[in-house]
Amino acid sequence: MHSTTLLSPQPPTAATAPPVGVAVLGCGYWGPNLVRNFFDTPGCRMLAICDQSEARRQAMQARHPSVRAVADFGDVLRDASIDAVAIATPVQTHAPLAKRALLAGKHVLVEKPLTTSVEDAEELVELAQRQRRVLMVDHTFVYTGAVRRMKDLIDTGEIGELYYYDSVRVNLGLVQHDVNVVWDLAAHDLAIMDYLLPVRPTQVSAIGVTHLPGGMADVAYLTLRFEGDLIAHFHVNWLSPVKVRQVLVGGDRRMILYDDLEPTEKVKVYDRGVRWNGHADDARREALVAYRLGDMHAPMLDQTEALRTECGHFIESIRGGGTPVTDGQAGLRTVRILAAAERSLQKGGAMERLDG
Amino acid sequence: MHSTTLLSPQPPTAATAPPVGVAVLGCGYWGPNLVRNFFDTPGCRMLAICDQSEARRQAMQARHPSVRAVADFGDVLRDASIDAVAIATPVQTHAPLAKRALLAGKHVLVEKPLTTSVEDAEELVELAQRQRRVLMVDHTFVYTGAVRRMKDLIDTGEIGELYYYDSVRVNLGLVQHDVNVVWDLAAHDLAIMDYLLPVRPTQVSAIGVTHLPGGMADVAYLTLRFEGDLIAHFHVNWLSPVKVRQVLVGGDRRMILYDDLEPTEKVKVYDRGVRWNGHADDARREALVAYRLGDMHAPMLDQTEALRTECGHFIESIRGGGTPVTDGQAGLRTVRILAAAERSLQKGGAMERLDG
Amino acid sequence: MHSTTLLSPQPPTAATAPPVGVAVLGCGYWGPNLVRNFFDTPGCRMLAICDQSEARRQAMQARHPSVRAVADFGDVLRDASIDAVAIATPVQTHAPLAKRALLAGKHVLVEKPLTTSVEDAEELVELAQRQRRVLMVDHTFVYTGAVRRMKDLIDTGEIGELYYYDSVRVNLGLVQHDVNVVWDLAAHDLAIMDYLLPVRPTQVSAIGVTHLPGGMADVAYLTLRFEGDLIAHFHVNWLSPVKVRQVLVGGDRRMILYDDLEPTEKVKVYDRGVRWNGHADDARREALVAYRLGDMHAPMLDQTEALRTECGHFIESIRGGGTPVTDGQAGLRTVRILAAAERSLQKGGAMERLDG
Amino acid sequence: MHSTTLLSPQPPTAATAPPVGVAVLGCGYWGPNLVRNFFDTPGCRMLAICDQSEARRQAMQARHPSVRAVADFGDVLRDASIDAVAIATPVQTHAPLAKRALLAGKHVLVEKPLTTSVEDAEELVELAQRQRRVLMVDHTFVYTGAVRRMKDLIDTGEIGELYYYDSVRVNLGLVQHDVNVVWDLAAHDLAIMDYLLPVRPTQVSAIGVTHLPGGMADVAYLTLRFEGDLIAHFHVNWLSPVKVRQVLVGGDRRMILYDDLEPTEKVKVYDRGVRWNGHADDARREALVAYRLGDMHAPMLDQTEALRTECGHFIESIRGGGTPVTDGQAGLRTVRILAAAERSLQKGGAMERLDG
Repeated sequence: MHSTTLLSPQPPTAATAPPVGVAVLGCGYWGPNLVRNFFDTPGCRMLAICDQSEARRQAMQARHPSVRAVADFGDVLRDASIDAVAIATPVQTHAPLAKRALLAGKHVLVEKPLTTSVEDAEELVELAQRQRRVLMVDHTFVYTGAVRRMKDLIDTGEIGELYYYDSVRVNLGLVQHDVNVVWDLAAHDLAIMDYLLPVRPTQVSAIGVTHLPGGMADVAYLTLRFEGDLIAHFHVNWLSPVKVRQVLVGGDRRMILYDDLEPTEKVKVYDRGVRWNGHADDARREALVAYRLGDMHAPMLDQTEALRTECGHFIESIRGGGTPVTDGQAGLRTVRILAAAERSLQKGGAMERLDG
Repeated sequence: MHSTTLLSPQPPTAATAPPVGVAVLGCGYWGPNLVRNFFDTPGCRMLAICDQSEARRQAMQARHPSVRAVADFGDVLRDASIDAVAIATPVQTHAPLAKRALLAGKHVLVEKPLTTSVEDAEELVELAQRQRRVLMVDHTFVYTGAVRRMKDLIDTGEIGELYYYDSVRVNLGLVQHDVNVVWDLAAHDLAIMDYLLPVRPTQVSAIGVTHLPGGMADVAYLTLRFEGDLIAHFHVNWLSPVKVRQVLVGGDRRMILYDDLEPTEKVKVYDRGVRWNGHADDARREALVAYRLGDMHAPMLDQTEALRTECGHFIESIRGGGTPVTDGQAGLRTVRILAAAERSLQKGGAMERLDG
Repeated sequence: MHSTTLLSPQPPTAATAPPVGVAVLGCGYWGPNLVRNFFDTPGCRMLAICDQSEARRQAMQARHPSVRAVADFGDVLRDASIDAVAIATPVQTHAPLAKRALLAGKHVLVEKPLTTSVEDAEELVELAQRQRRVLMVDHTFVYTGAVRRMKDLIDTGEIGELYYYDSVRVNLGLVQHDVNVVWDLAAHDLAIMDYLLPVRPTQVSAIGVTHLPGGMADVAYLTLRFEGDLIAHFHVNWLSPVKVRQVLVGGDRRMILYDDLEPTEKVKVYDRGVRWNGHADDARREALVAYRLGDMHAPMLDQTEALRTECGHFIESIRGGGTPVTDGQAGLRTVRILAAAERSLQKGGAMERLDG
Repeated sequence: MHSTTLLSPQPPTAATAPPVGVAVLGCGYWGPNLVRNFFDTPGCRMLAICDQSEARRQAMQARHPSVRAVADFGDVLRDASIDAVAIATPVQTHAPLAKRALLAGKHVLVEKPLTTSVEDAEELVELAQRQRRVLMVDHTFVYTGAVRRMKDLIDTGEIGELYYYDSVRVNLGLVQHDVNVVWDLAAHDLAIMDYLLPVRPTQVSAIGVTHLPGGMADVAYLTLRFEGDLIAHFHVNWLSPVKVRQVLVGGDRRMILYDDLEPTEKVKVYDRGVRWNGHADDARREALVAYRLGDMHAPMLDQTEALRTECGHFIESIRGGGTPVTDGQAGLRTVRILAAAERSLQKGGAMERLDG
């Protein structure tokens, strides 16, 4: 666990290591952000973009004249100056494209979710290991100052024993046609939870409803169970009139409210709680429940753009030979929960086991 | 449905109808509020209080010297000047006390939840009908200006077809020993929903966890299903560092955000939504989803204390011979959901049918 | 200054000191709150109320049958069992009534503002001293947990050198006929500032406007100057659609945001600031301005009702022979600023000196 | 007044009018935003940028390879293909640069404030008139959906007779060395007020304090008087721990709260107020004050980037021959208030007349 807590688990990069040549695949909504950030990342050279749309290629080249723009992914794979590929294409194409890139000996960063099936994710993880290449998934929120600060609070024991993890991500969102609200929104929240919690869920249940004919589920609730009394719950909704992005983490020592829409005080730590100080069979039970109402503390957070931190971490992982915080395993764990949630959704909310 | 929309379904009270004699049973936390409000309600005389604790009886008499204070409920039942009894005792005693009162020919107002079992609630409903007495349950929030305004919005079709009902009631609450967080907190929310929605749920699932040894569930999530694509969801939690009391109601025409902690703008109506304007099999589906981003409107609300409105409604129902908005049937419907949620909780979240 | 920081400057009360007999004068809006709190205060006996309105006298006696209700203040003054009088009558009557009470040997608590003129306030202060009686002014906010916590923060140096004090108290208030918005609202804010700041203002300017014919100023801005670069500013407004009650206190080490409408986190302490670390004539000035963006901390506050704390403090001051935190001098200082602000208002905002 | 309400007072542009050649002068913080927006504005060609810094010129050309980058402003002035110049240089250089541009026959857009002296502003206005060229000042907030919506509300009489205008713009800002907080922050607020109000102020008073040695005023309060009972007040502060950007506009029919930091509901219209319905000498005055507590309404706002709208308006004014909403006169009026506020600041807050 400790290796994922910190963002610099990598051995120090030799000053003489050559810069990493990077190509970005897919220049729709997210790709241009990757290009901009790789330009600002030391230790790499942003060399090429690849997109089937000529309009997009031209737009990118107008903005970044030094970048090579190609239509055929084969051109990227054959280019020996390109060491690493960042994939920001539609989710169904993640697996085949990442596989080709790894087979061609490239390091790979894949937008979330890693794949649409557990089998694909497993294959990518194995392939990356065999090829000795970095496979990283773009779980962007993990690289925010807010989430990294929460990780510290949990790892150092400030929160104490964990009671519950409650997440809400709702807004009037673009109703999508290829994925439902779970794969679209809960993918973010499961990735955050995967990073924050020191334990893994054992079961998941999901209930969702579809309101537009021929559409996918647009409102859904996920419940995750763990060993012991920890519970995690996620509300994702494309049909909310207001935008909410909140996580509550309850512990026996302290509690956290993470509100991603707060401009500066995104993380609030409450020195409040209820604690049981005695024995279960104790007749004087009532006297042994201690309520604590204490101060609130909002730590100053690192304001660096998450994607900037993440691109730097990807390049450092390649140059230093380390394992990224959001490696293929993290991507696989998240896909495993998403796939089980999907099965539960089809069965009307039945609890599904999470094996592995 | 229309008869419950308005708070004056009763036939006009004859001006000559004699005032209703009232006794309040139980003077712990809630009883004194009932006493104070019955004193301010026209058409009734607040005559007696009944409590086994001598200290409480003395405290009430010091504040209200004109009121008779008795220890024995039999004294209340035998007193012919007392027409109506308001019961604010521990929940397990609701059923036997209400039964005795109805058998003695009294009208009865019972604190929420009406009973702890469906059988008890059914028996009370039948008994009240047989005795031709008013049986009313104290679903206080139903009598707030906010909830009544929401009822208008839903009944007049302003919200349109209902998509979802999402409720959150969390705070650092008193961990109780006789009831769990569902019976304590969700009882409020199910009563509000029962009043607001024109349809009845068909299934309920509940998942909860217990963190204190020997305790009851302190965090729980309830999901209710209806005919069609409507879903209702409730988050209740005694271990939250912050207090939240929010309901989101999504419809195809408008959406409501009800925030009970807002000082004045508790109800916000958003002219926003996603609407499907075409046929499910239509290939041009994408073009037929219409997003609407419009104004927000916060109506001025009646600020009258809810319990004051409720006590007046109880007295008017007695004098006018009408059926109260939160009658025994409303209490029974809520108990039926609570009992089914309890069974689901025991089974780890299985969907339970709601028959009747 | 230190003696006013703490709420227990009084010598310990002899356990054998007899309880203080209390009468409350004026039972309109505020008087009943005083009665209720004196009933709950140890060391005193709430004996009598005095009001010219028979309806009010009857209402008070119905609620508090043990209390004597009289119409004539002379009856209170002649009653040897009454040691202390709390005055909650219209502001113009404060001075004559308080004077009669002091002359009759009673201790006196007067609602804010102490008087309507500096001369009256000075006379009361001298009279109380001569009669060796406690004269206290009801600056209620001084007794809140929030303001007392801010006092600690300022006194202990946590805030550092003070830069500014900015206060806003606006709402859709009752437009009054006997006093303008400065005497009505700013009286609260000047009392809070008088308690919090270790220095006294030297000048005041006030600008106000009147919008209703025949009315008093309903919107006003006050500016206070001190020795050095400290400035204080107050916005009071009866015509605001929203209610705001905020104070910003800027210092060179930390800054405070006090929001009285926040349910729990009323006081937020920001570890932020701008600091000058060099010499004014230093050419490298730019490099010597240090910005600090740090954590925010919201301390847990004492939630006791302010008036409860205040009544206890009044009784303890009488029994222990100490000087109350909001003594006649504090009342006089506040009246002095209000009177000078009134003069400035008449002159269109001219700076008025505050002597004494 | 009406001509400034709408953003299209210009006569329709002939479809055949040639595109306007544009140069941007100064590529520090604001200039690149102008460049980006002129690229997206129809009817113009973004041709050149001018900056003395070679690093900045190179940065701009890397991003926009088609743009000519020059160091000498003379090159721009001599270029006949350049019809219009946008000036985003330090404020002291606005007047000389704008003057040279107008003399060379260019249309000119100047960043706020237009100049640092009334004389300079007057000269520019006259020169533009003589040269028959568009002179526009970059009062960006005037082009936001929020401010334009407020303008509609005021112009259509929805707010009624204006009572007060209260503005707060505070944050932990960059303490500047060349201008004080009034010229830096209040320039925005005075420009917004100049656009919104149908009347002009007659007097201004300003009080400010300086906390850093050798610095400029960092906290200031401005008060503006008008004919009648309207008052305007501005709080600007570089030393606030929290960011606040709010305007309250009170009228006798409705009131507005404009909160620029709200993500979507920036403008809230309250159907609340106090109204005087009778005669001033009327003895029954009390009965004639009518309080109104009504609904709140948050209109949907145009979300277009303000600078985008503004650049389009500049180009349309040039092509259509119309007068821009924020023309030289608007810039001059704002500079006139700023200069008078500066004089008042030096005199410790004396009221200064605003002539002309």
